[in-house]
Amino acid sequence: MLHGIGDDCAVLRLPAGPHDLLITTDLSIEDVHFRRPWHPPQSAGHRCLARGLSDIAAMGGQPLACFLSLGLPFQLPQRWVDNFLQGLEQLAQRFKAPLAGGDISSAPKIIADIVVAGQAQRGKAILRSGTRPGDRIYVTGELGASAAVLKRLYAGGHIRASRSSRHFYPEPRVEVGEQLLREGLATAMIDISDGLSVDLGHICRESGVSARILASALPVAKAAGLELALHGGEDYELLFTAPAKARIPNRVAGVNITGIGVIEPSKNYRSAIQIIDDNGRTRSLAARGWQHFTRQFRER
Amino acid sequence: MLHGIGDDCAVLRLPAGPHDLLITTDLSIEDVHFRRPWHPPQSAGHRCLARGLSDIAAMGGQPLACFLSLGLPFQLPQRWVDNFLQGLEQLAQRFKAPLAGGDISSAPKIIADIVVAGQAQRGKAILRSGTRPGDRIYVTGELGASAAVLKRLYAGGHIRASRSSRHFYPEPRVEVGEQLLREGLATAMIDISDGLSVDLGHICRESGVSARILASALPVAKAAGLELALHGGEDYELLFTAPAKARIPNRVAGVNITGIGVIEPSKNYRSAIQIIDDNGRTRSLAARGWQHFTRQFRER
Repeated sequence: MLHGIGDDCAVLRLPAGPHDLLITTDLSIEDVHFRRPWHPPQSAGHRCLARGLSDIAAMGGQPLACFLSLGLPFQLPQRWVDNFLQGLEQLAQRFKAPLAGGDISSAPKIIADIVVAGQAQRGKAILRSGTRPGDRIYVTGELGASAAVLKRLYAGGHIRASRSSRHFYPEPRVEVGEQLLREGLATAMIDISDGLSVDLGHICRESGVSARILASALPVAKAAGLELALHGGEDYELLFTAPAKARIPNRVAGVNITGIGVIEPSKNYRSAIQIIDDNGRTRSLAARGWQHFTRQFRER
Repeated sequence: MLHGIGDDCAVLRLPAGPHDLLITTDLSIEDVHFRRPWHPPQSAGHRCLARGLSDIAAMGGQPLACFLSLGLPFQLPQRWVDNFLQGLEQLAQRFKAPLAGGDISSAPKIIADIVVAGQAQRGKAILRSGTRPGDRIYVTGELGASAAVLKRLYAGGHIRASRSSRHFYPEPRVEVGEQLLREGLATAMIDISDGLSVDLGHICRESGVSARILASALPVAKAAGLELALHGGEDYELLFTAPAKARIPNRVAGVNITGIGVIEPSKNYRSAIQIIDDNGRTRSLAARGWQHFTRQFRER
């Protein structure tokens, strides 16, 4: 970066060589995406940026810089803002995505819109639309951990915001995405922010295919259960596809990779996703995401 | 643009040749930056994007794409959103900055964070920090028109949101900025979003200089008066400096250019800006911006 905060725009110089620019924006709103009684400010700041970094990861991209538009209620303690920014900047530093600009305003609730700019080798960004029938489906890490915490919070539980918690401090899978791009392994990719059923549905729609997954193959997080692994959001794991003959390692950049199913030609079922459950029956999997901070699953 | 809405990130391919990337974000919040009883949705959408385009103009840049994060109250009529987007997209189309992505969420008030990406020839973006003593100070168009409308709105006036109104449909000075960059005329530049006294103060601070302006030279908009021309915000005109010997035309890209003062070495006055008033007296000009939607001027 050449020039950050303190001018009308940030000025970024992209590294030499043929690159495409990646840009993503994610809006986080108090009581929609986080709650002050539940999320310490450091966690809220970390989660805010993690959403954007995870989008860059989902393209196989490399983060370059981030920008933050912040709306703040007048009565909000300065200490809350300082700690929010600390949580955000610690993550920004770790992924070499310095805070390069933004805007600030008064607002009725805390509003944080994060923009992350990144880059990928020209023409190599991994899209949602690139998978074909016969490809295998993989996920990183474990599923359902974040939603399991959220469920306990709704049930009135007090949970300390541990640094190792995938809910409070999700780790964007940037290195995994970069390695998959570099080695040309993935045909399509998305991050699991809304839940596996919703996000695999996006891949199916953008690629014009169907998918079949095996319930027993899913890497269900401890304390999560199948339902949360299928529909729980905010895991920020990567979901990708690769040709059947591609040799996908068990671990990429230190993160476990699990095969969970196969891509099929587009079918006329009610849902693009079929799931084979533990007793061998196949059923349609509706795309249900965990609606942020309401006590229900909803169709989307 | 290669790939817009419908993936984790937008993918932008910058044109060949050595360019720097410009990025700006501007947060617009209902009842802070616009009011539904005053601003038709088309105007609110136009104003939202104009803020970002004006920041690109202030660097001499060329817009490439825009991104919108939108927070919407549940009860907001869909028609309002459609018209807001129409106002925004018409302006986007005119300046070849297609809406390439964004995010959406529920929110307690309408929230619209606009991101504009642009480009400038490598190393040529016009910063706030480049002016030197002896440079002359110029502004585009007229000053105070937007604040004059706002003042009438506060006084209870009903004002039709005319397409030609600089308050309801401000025209970002993108072509002016591009031409100033291309011809290498400006040493520093900023857009007048907070008011001349505030924004000239930014140039002084970033460049480490003082400024002396002549009240009688200011291009005061009809119905505005000197106070609003000095301190009224949201004109989105450009304020730039150029060496004394540079030949600045009276019009650039069809917009009037007016010389209003001179840059001086940094002085130890209370304010970096001195103004010579109509009876020849010099006084310090405090940086007072029109605070959005409050009835007062404030120091900032």
